[in-house]
Amino acid sequence: MSRIGIIGSAGRMGKALAEAITAAGETVSGGIDRDGDVAALAAASDVLVDFSSPAALEGNLHAAIVAGVPIVIGTTGLEERHHWLIDSAAEQIAVLQTGNTSLGVNMLAHLVREAASRLGEDWDIEIVETHHRMKVDAPSGTALLLGEAAAEGRGIGLSQHAVRGRDGITGAREAGTIGFAALRGGSVAGDHTVHLLADNERISLSHLAENRGIFAKGAVRACQWLIGKEPGRYRMPEVLGL
Amino acid sequence: MSRIGIIGSAGRMGKALAEAITAAGETVSGGIDRDGDVAALAAASDVLVDFSSPAALEGNLHAAIVAGVPIVIGTTGLEERHHWLIDSAAEQIAVLQTGNTSLGVNMLAHLVREAASRLGEDWDIEIVETHHRMKVDAPSGTALLLGEAAAEGRGIGLSQHAVRGRDGITGAREAGTIGFAALRGGSVAGDHTVHLLADNERISLSHLAENRGIFAKGAVRACQWLIGKEPGRYRMPEVLGL
Amino acid sequence: MSRIGIIGSAGRMGKALAEAITAAGETVSGGIDRDGDVAALAAASDVLVDFSSPAALEGNLHAAIVAGVPIVIGTTGLEERHHWLIDSAAEQIAVLQTGNTSLGVNMLAHLVREAASRLGEDWDIEIVETHHRMKVDAPSGTALLLGEAAAEGRGIGLSQHAVRGRDGITGAREAGTIGFAALRGGSVAGDHTVHLLADNERISLSHLAENRGIFAKGAVRACQWLIGKEPGRYRMPEVLGL
Amino acid sequence: MSRIGIIGSAGRMGKALAEAITAAGETVSGGIDRDGDVAALAAASDVLVDFSSPAALEGNLHAAIVAGVPIVIGTTGLEERHHWLIDSAAEQIAVLQTGNTSLGVNMLAHLVREAASRLGEDWDIEIVETHHRMKVDAPSGTALLLGEAAAEGRGIGLSQHAVRGRDGITGAREAGTIGFAALRGGSVAGDHTVHLLADNERISLSHLAENRGIFAKGAVRACQWLIGKEPGRYRMPEVLGL
Repeated sequence: MSRIGIIGSAGRMGKALAEAITAAGETVSGGIDRDGDVAALAAASDVLVDFSSPAALEGNLHAAIVAGVPIVIGTTGLEERHHWLIDSAAEQIAVLQTGNTSLGVNMLAHLVREAASRLGEDWDIEIVETHHRMKVDAPSGTALLLGEAAAEGRGIGLSQHAVRGRDGITGAREAGTIGFAALRGGSVAGDHTVHLLADNERISLSHLAENRGIFAKGAVRACQWLIGKEPGRYRMPEVLGL
Repeated sequence: MSRIGIIGSAGRMGKALAEAITAAGETVSGGIDRDGDVAALAAASDVLVDFSSPAALEGNLHAAIVAGVPIVIGTTGLEERHHWLIDSAAEQIAVLQTGNTSLGVNMLAHLVREAASRLGEDWDIEIVETHHRMKVDAPSGTALLLGEAAAEGRGIGLSQHAVRGRDGITGAREAGTIGFAALRGGSVAGDHTVHLLADNERISLSHLAENRGIFAKGAVRACQWLIGKEPGRYRMPEVLGL
Repeated sequence: MSRIGIIGSAGRMGKALAEAITAAGETVSGGIDRDGDVAALAAASDVLVDFSSPAALEGNLHAAIVAGVPIVIGTTGLEERHHWLIDSAAEQIAVLQTGNTSLGVNMLAHLVREAASRLGEDWDIEIVETHHRMKVDAPSGTALLLGEAAAEGRGIGLSQHAVRGRDGITGAREAGTIGFAALRGGSVAGDHTVHLLADNERISLSHLAENRGIFAKGAVRACQWLIGKEPGRYRMPEVLGL
Repeated sequence: MSRIGIIGSAGRMGKALAEAITAAGETVSGGIDRDGDVAALAAASDVLVDFSSPAALEGNLHAAIVAGVPIVIGTTGLEERHHWLIDSAAEQIAVLQTGNTSLGVNMLAHLVREAASRLGEDWDIEIVETHHRMKVDAPSGTALLLGEAAAEGRGIGLSQHAVRGRDGITGAREAGTIGFAALRGGSVAGDHTVHLLADNERISLSHLAENRGIFAKGAVRACQWLIGKEPGRYRMPEVLGL
């Protein structure tokens, strides 16, 4: 029975995590939020799971390193500098950062990579996602994860080819770009669709989450898998055997 | 047999209009583009149909007024000052401006107005559209038409409540807003969906156009209907009897 | 605080009802299943809510009449003879039978009626629904409710125009029919789409339920509304003020 | 410049084929329908393309064998005995039979096979398709092609696991089955979606054809590819290099 510490325990995902940890037969070693003592939490845990905010990331990684425990990071809205922090931490502890912990989304990313690698640039790629009205960032971490899969399939970099927040006089679509659009409303746990559009036909690949339970379940699975791993940066498909 | 003059005859819609005019048993009195003589075209026509660009609008309206012929305007990307020009012209000639000429879209707008008027503000409204890769403006004129219908249903103004091009750290969704998102790719003639999202349930109202033929057909129907009408600004639902 | 008796308390809806009754500040007077004593339950309740099976309907109505309590019926898979039983019971007690208790679905039915009444027979109507893998009947009660709305809008009877379970060499689609299709899988709480398809364009009107909570919540609202009503057969739109 | 003979030339696909053959720089050697002389057509062609009816298949294959020309078969509604006829013919000539000739649909089939092979039986598979009101058979040939891909991915036979035309009291869904549903209406060229549904999440993989042009274009590509091939039964992915 492993002890899992929750960073961001008061949020929607935090509550779902607590339930999923118990359901999986593990123990919640504790939970903290903005003003909590992450060092103490790390010391009392076999693994940490972080669904808090980008601002807290540096402190969380530091606490994990000091305590020598692995950490699963599901926080969204990360920027390039956050990824540098993660890479750096991964030299000392096992870290798994992911935009989405569900089996379905990771399977979808695999299919998107496959389709993008086999279809030419005359198939335009557009990604649209819908989330509940409380979500503060756009596009979602999962949309970016899917965009990365598409870019990988095409052998290009996402940051140079992403088109976000299309509005106004945009001109014709530039070939080879990957578009993102975000809808917000209601209590939607997370819908994502990747469209591949050619002349006279299109392919659409979607995932729909009915509730946050699948993300919490996947995060716990990642925690269990990460315990005892060598330092390094791991990815969700390894956990799921994809 | 009426003589219909096409402004913007070389574009995709211009070509579809020429076919639809003939199919409806009317005559194409002529077609012009950027450098054409709109005054001569107006003089030779019983009605004008304009699917060109906002920049050309003022000149086109002037020509219609001088010749005393009605005009159907399907140009998209119009701003507030274009609507003032149209209102002013409508004091002297019959003008019908619309974001979409198809029966289906105008029916959809009717349903959106109905739904928005009966569901409370706890139902968030989001509008997403997809068009071919050559389209230069976003959101589409049709998306704005649907947004106007939603705002009317709610008894609010669209411009003060529209949220467009959501991207980055946006914060939680503001209650009462109407969101817009635009996808571009392939040869899509026009897909539109209006989502109404509440806690634990959502309603989605969509229109899908298989090709431009329905827009051209509707525009010709509007031309036929407009001939002989008193000066004034008319709307598509009047043409369709909705 | 009203006492609500649940018939079919062990099923998925039964459990959701118990939660929703408490959440609404009312009391669960008791719950029974196949072998329960419905007469005793009726005697101890201010209103009954039945999400059990068609086979139990006659006995349930009888118990409600004897006890003189109103009853809300959400059971699906009803046939014509069950509706006769309900009409007959409604001469002595207040009865509300519905294929769906949610605000969203009843709003959708209103929009479908509206669209079907204004669009001609050249718009083909097709209804498709998806439910979880445990559902035993097809089409869903909600799909039939939407079909009734479409038929009403068109001024025709549903039973004579319904086409269900299309398979094999069917021949071309007969004009004026209303098609039904059912998908089953996963834990889907209920997706419904009504398509109206014409030449070159189509309108699609959808409802998606994230979980059973909205149905339970609506059923409790119906129970509260029904207490004290005169004998008669009531409908969900009256409860919701649609 | 190859000579392509069209069997079923008066139908919708026949007309689209004639256009696509010319657009591809090839020649229409002739076109026949129900009472045409297929032997003469075969003798005058380098390759035949058959989008007629199952009843005509035996005669068409016989004519191709006698003339020693390859044949592309896009006819839908084939039964097991038709496949035996094709296998037998393939011992003497090159034959390519397919439920769909478009790149997009064959790509989709590849993704469906991939997903079905990697997701367990707790992911229910359901296939739904929409076609124009004139289509006489259900499910579509393309839906069956996608079902075959799913069955292959799972390592099961489709015929023993297909559930078609679900209606009435069906009982709970049987694990491991593959469901089919068909919608008919308007002028829809062909929409297909394969749903994979698990507890709390689902993946949906779709293809939408805007018009028949993509099928005709793919069929011509298959004709060009088939000329000069050894006797045998070929498949569309080989043509497309998937």
